[in-house]
Amino acid sequence: MKVGNRYYRSIWLSEDGWSVEIIDQTCLPHEFVICRLDSLEKAAHAISAMQVRGAPLIGATAAYGLCLALREDSSDEALDKAAAELLATRPTAVNLHWALERMKTALLPLPAAERVTKAYEVAAAICDEDAALNEAIGSHGLSLLQAAAARKRPGERLNILTHCNAGWLATVDWGTALAPIYKAHDLGIDLHVWVDETRPRNQGASLTAWELAGHSVPHSVIVDNAGGHLMQNGMVDLCIVGTDRTAANGDVCNKIGTYLKALAAHDNGIPFYIALPSPTIDWGMEKGVGHVPIEERAPEEVSHVRGLDRKGVLREVSLLPDGSQAANYAFDVTPAKYVTGLVTELGVCEASRNGLEGLFHSRAV
Amino acid sequence: MKVGNRYYRSIWLSEDGWSVEIIDQTCLPHEFVICRLDSLEKAAHAISAMQVRGAPLIGATAAYGLCLALREDSSDEALDKAAAELLATRPTAVNLHWALERMKTALLPLPAAERVTKAYEVAAAICDEDAALNEAIGSHGLSLLQAAAARKRPGERLNILTHCNAGWLATVDWGTALAPIYKAHDLGIDLHVWVDETRPRNQGASLTAWELAGHSVPHSVIVDNAGGHLMQNGMVDLCIVGTDRTAANGDVCNKIGTYLKALAAHDNGIPFYIALPSPTIDWGMEKGVGHVPIEERAPEEVSHVRGLDRKGVLREVSLLPDGSQAANYAFDVTPAKYVTGLVTELGVCEASRNGLEGLFHSRAV
Repeated sequence: MKVGNRYYRSIWLSEDGWSVEIIDQTCLPHEFVICRLDSLEKAAHAISAMQVRGAPLIGATAAYGLCLALREDSSDEALDKAAAELLATRPTAVNLHWALERMKTALLPLPAAERVTKAYEVAAAICDEDAALNEAIGSHGLSLLQAAAARKRPGERLNILTHCNAGWLATVDWGTALAPIYKAHDLGIDLHVWVDETRPRNQGASLTAWELAGHSVPHSVIVDNAGGHLMQNGMVDLCIVGTDRTAANGDVCNKIGTYLKALAAHDNGIPFYIALPSPTIDWGMEKGVGHVPIEERAPEEVSHVRGLDRKGVLREVSLLPDGSQAANYAFDVTPAKYVTGLVTELGVCEASRNGLEGLFHSRAV
Repeated sequence: MKVGNRYYRSIWLSEDGWSVEIIDQTCLPHEFVICRLDSLEKAAHAISAMQVRGAPLIGATAAYGLCLALREDSSDEALDKAAAELLATRPTAVNLHWALERMKTALLPLPAAERVTKAYEVAAAICDEDAALNEAIGSHGLSLLQAAAARKRPGERLNILTHCNAGWLATVDWGTALAPIYKAHDLGIDLHVWVDETRPRNQGASLTAWELAGHSVPHSVIVDNAGGHLMQNGMVDLCIVGTDRTAANGDVCNKIGTYLKALAAHDNGIPFYIALPSPTIDWGMEKGVGHVPIEERAPEEVSHVRGLDRKGVLREVSLLPDGSQAANYAFDVTPAKYVTGLVTELGVCEASRNGLEGLFHSRAV
């Protein structure tokens, strides 16, 4: 997608042909900083420090992290060790595991001397495929938005609510939940997006809002508390969010707070869609509730917030009184029964094993 | 309640016998500032700027605001004008209307010369009664917490979730939702409170956490997104919150986000209680959903956050990218069907007209 007049992906090969560049997402929306990754350690740090985040982008970054590791040492042991180090960076998104397995499956049969070249090929393919999957998700989701827009009275805009950031910054390009929104906006559908700020890290307020502003999509940032009121009062036509892992039964793990919005949508008869590329499906996980490992992150993400002061200086401020602690669970699981449909690259299906297998039967195990 | 070793209410008559002092709640938790109100304008400003907030405390402050106005001019016209000015400060809490009506009913029949003395008497009575009501709520709520604690296995602590601040800072003393928690803690019940930070103004992180820390009640601040996950995973035994207005059918208007927590509690079979003194009941409102006026506040409350920087300086920082706007709805309405019970000064009742009338039949209209 474009930043100003220049086209960007969220990760790309540097001009040197071997190191990798990313947009440092911890600096957004206030600063646009490009960061060069030239080692396994930097790639792993980029994931764990959330310079890159979003399940698909984490997978792509891990793939390039393996490339960087293999340049140093392309032995079996080094490959396994690097993959283990990358896998340990974040526990919840399944794409990380998926991308590393795909790389290992392609590389381990090869002689060590041929692995580096192949690794870059597979990493590039993972990136290109992710962009293509998301564009396809955008097309399938577009049909849903067009149908919803057709149900509005003339002059009424379509109101969409989203949580966290499932835009192009969360993927290699296009985004999952935002891809249909970009396509609908580009086609002239009159829409407006309610953007949950998504505490504690504010990926909604800092990334989704930044993306939408950059693409001139009308939007309003709201606190995470507000969606229920909006849905109860007819101010939301449709919800669409991404996911970090979808269990085989259609239970969906996504950013903390997603479950609350799904409950409110269900209570008010509002469609609640999940947009996901198939690498986000964990076919080996029978059900999600109680089974997806939920990352606990540092309490400082809750107790401290970063923003620009009046002079434009980026500052971190502390919110809590002395003597108070914080707890920080990063994801929750929405039971499949509250999901209206899964929007995938192959089409929209019911959030159930039947639904998923109907679309992806050849991949099901 | 105590701050350090000194006992405070949230509002009290100054030593001069006529002006009023409050704790400026916009400075908490970082600074403990006492603010003197010596005019109608300052009292109205204290409410609208949220130096005082919480339905009961708003009512008490408005009562003293009328006293201050009558000192200047105790005519009928001045009384009506002052009451109208105070009523316009905040639209949602019904206690404001209740307190002003009570003052007017007591004062209008009197000769103008006798009104000031009487006004201070009634305002003091409103304050004393509020403290007594809340203490009674604490006792009734305590029984619920004791019963819940009795259901825990030995060594397991009782986990309570609350939203916003319904503590002594929201009332004259004790608090509504927190009164039972203080009483249970004082009796040695092993409990822990999950404190929703309550964006956008963070009354949970800044006021509830400050109150609980001051009273040595174990607690953890969480983002508003987290409660659903905690409830889904057996980490919450009971929810209790306050209310700004309860409709006659038991629908409950409270701080934005309450509805989402009630949905999650319902989905997971967790009791969801509302603590309320009877002046919070709007007997004239048949139902709450779609009827309680929901205050829209300045978008800057969403787009900006205040906290302490590393040097201990209080700073406000901006969170949003250029080109993004925010919307700020301050309350939502939880349908009665999601409320397990109303904890009032007369006991606990079902959230329904029958339940409320059963307890308060003599006041019902």
